Order: sequence, then C-alpha cells, then structure tokens
Amino acid sequence: MVCYECPMSVDPFEINGGNIEKFKAASHEKLVRSEKDLNGFFLTGTSAETTVYEVYEFEGPHCTNLAITIVRPGKVGDEYYMTKGHFHERPNADETYFCLAGNGVLLLQSKDGEPEVIDMTAGSAIYVPPEWAHRTVNTGDDELTFLAVYPKDSGHDYDVILRNGFKKVVVEVDGQPVVRDR
Amino acid sequence: MVCYECPMSVDPFEINGGNIEKFKAASHEKLVRSEKDLNGFFLTGTSAETTVYEVYEFEGPHCTNLAITIVRPGKVGDEYYMTKGHFHERPNADETYFCLAGNGVLLLQSKDGEPEVIDMTAGSAIYVPPEWAHRTVNTGDDELTFLAVYPKDSGHDYDVILRNGFKKVVVEVDGQPVVRDR
Repeated sequence: MVCYECPMSVDPFEINGGNIEKFKAASHEKLVRSEKDLNGFFLTGTSAETTVYEVYEFEGPHCTNLAITIVRPGKVGDEYYMTKGHFHERPNADETYFCLAGNGVLLLQSKDGEPEVIDMTAGSAIYVPPEWAHRTVNTGDDELTFLAVYPKDSGHDYDVILRNGFKKVVVEVDGQPVVRDR
Repeated sequence: MVCYECPMSVDPFEINGGNIEKFKAASHEKLVRSEKDLNGFFLTGTSAETTVYEVYEFEGPHCTNLAITIVRPGKVGDEYYMTKGHFHERPNADETYFCLAGNGVLLLQSKDGEPEVIDMTAGSAIYVPPEWAHRTVNTGDDELTFLAVYPKDSGHDYDVILRNGFKKVVVEVDGQPVVRDR
C-alpha cells in the first residue's frame, strides 16, 4: 500500500526493542531534545547540549500516529533524565504506551492533580486516559525505549507542566531511584 | 475523567500479560469464538463448542479502540488454534499489535496475496499497515494474549478469508509448529 503522507510503500514491521530500525526508516519526523531544551522542567537549571531524548514519529494513514521515544540514561543533579511531559490539547485524546526496552517510570497526573506512578519495563503496556498528563523517566543504566499510539490531532500542552511541574519527581538516593514529592 | 461510552471513570491502567483484569473490567464488549464458530476457517471441519479465543474491546473516547485477544492453546486436526483473520473494511485503517504473553505467529497477507509471517512473543510490537489481512496463531502451550490499537471505524471483512483462506497455514509436524503453504 501507499503511505498517506509520502510515496513510500509500508510493509508490516516489527518494532521491538532491539529492532527499531525499520520504524526509524518509516518515520516522518525526528525530534531531539537536549538538557538545555528541558531547562525549567528539571529541578536544577541546565544549559548543557547533551541529548536527553529523541522521538521518531510515524504518521499513520488514518486517525492515529505512532511514535518511538528513546530516553537516554543520565541525570540533571539528582533527577533522572525524562521527557518534558504534557497534557493533550484535545480533551478526549487518550494514548497507549508499550515499553520496548529499558527500565523507568511513567508519571501521570490528572487535571485535578491526582498523581499516579507506573513502572515501565520491556513488555509493559499502559493506557493513558484523556486529561492525564504523562511523563516518562529513565531510571536505568540503558536507554528507555517505548512506543506510543495516539490520535493524530491530540496536540501537546507543555505550558501547565512548565509552570507547575508534576507533583512527583524521580531522584537518585543512595544509588537507587526514589519517587518523592516535588 | 468520564469515559465516552459509559458513566464509568477510567484511571490509567497497566495491561500487562499477567494483569489484564483492569482492562477486562473497563472493556465494553466481550466476544467468544468456539471451534464451531470458526468452521470453514480451519482446514478440517469442526462443530465442537470448545472456546478458541475471546476478545475484550475497550471503546476509546475519541477515534481509537483497544482490544485484548486471548487465543487458547489447542489444535483442530494438525492446525493450531487461531483467530478468523480479517481485512479492515475501511481501506486506510491500520493496527498496532503488542504481544503481552505466550508464543505464536502473526500471519499477514496483502491484497495482492503477498504473505508475511512474524513471530509473536511477550514484548513483540508489530505494525499492521492498511490493506493487510491479519490472523494470529497460538503455537504455544499457554494462552497467547495480545493488545491491539486500531481506528474505531476500521470494520472487519471476514468473507475474503473464509472464501480464500490465507496462503500460509501453521500446523504441527513432529511436535513443532511449521508454517507451510495451504
């Protein structure tokens, strides 16, 4: 078949942790975020150019997009590398996560401020309902890689997160990840 | 938040292989198919009432649905238990599969009759492009459980499969699963 967005033919592909090259090749957009890009999201300010995460987005031919995110291992201060985190702009946009490789934590927070923390490890599948902000944190020594499927008109609202943060942060204490109040 | 289809509140949930009870509880529809229901899809005729697979569907609040399918271990003749398999009625409807538990095979076939075979094991993620028929086969001793995300208007076309079958079948030979031409 012919892809919606480009003349490239798309065959079925496996998108396992160790085998995301086909996904990368089929993806329409790549986004790279450095520590500097995330300044204001971590507890500690940073202007480093070091990459924190990269996102490969695949535009589906109908209503959904797929994205693979790779969060590198690392910390800013005591806080583990993580994504910015966002609410969806569209109020009824949900999302499904599949963890492909690595170890981490999915921080969730409802509009009412209710926090939730779900462990991510290869094979984890998680449903993120609408109106729940979501951020992934890499607490391991290797890359944390996950696939997300979401409505293509979801949109991203980062502003609330930049202003208020998540209630929970994930920091290293005595060499171990600890989830604590911000 | 309030679910689109029902007054039930939906919290984020993990939907791992060993932990699909929350998904079952949140699902809006359950479908059970027996050997008899699949008569004509297997090489050998059968009228047994034994369950081959069950599907739990969760109606997302926007454009996508989620479903968990559990294919039981078993065979009809030498052929392993499997789903009916279908094309989507809507020509641009794709689907993403995530294997939660068990071992099996995803049989795919394009409109042009090109077959493809992808192994499924816990953690496998597979992208099924539009216009590719798809059928899952349980080749293991335990249940094969997988999650699918797809546009809610995808539709199912089983007729072509019932008429022509897939080009490939998965049968037991000397105690081992073998994929061979039909």
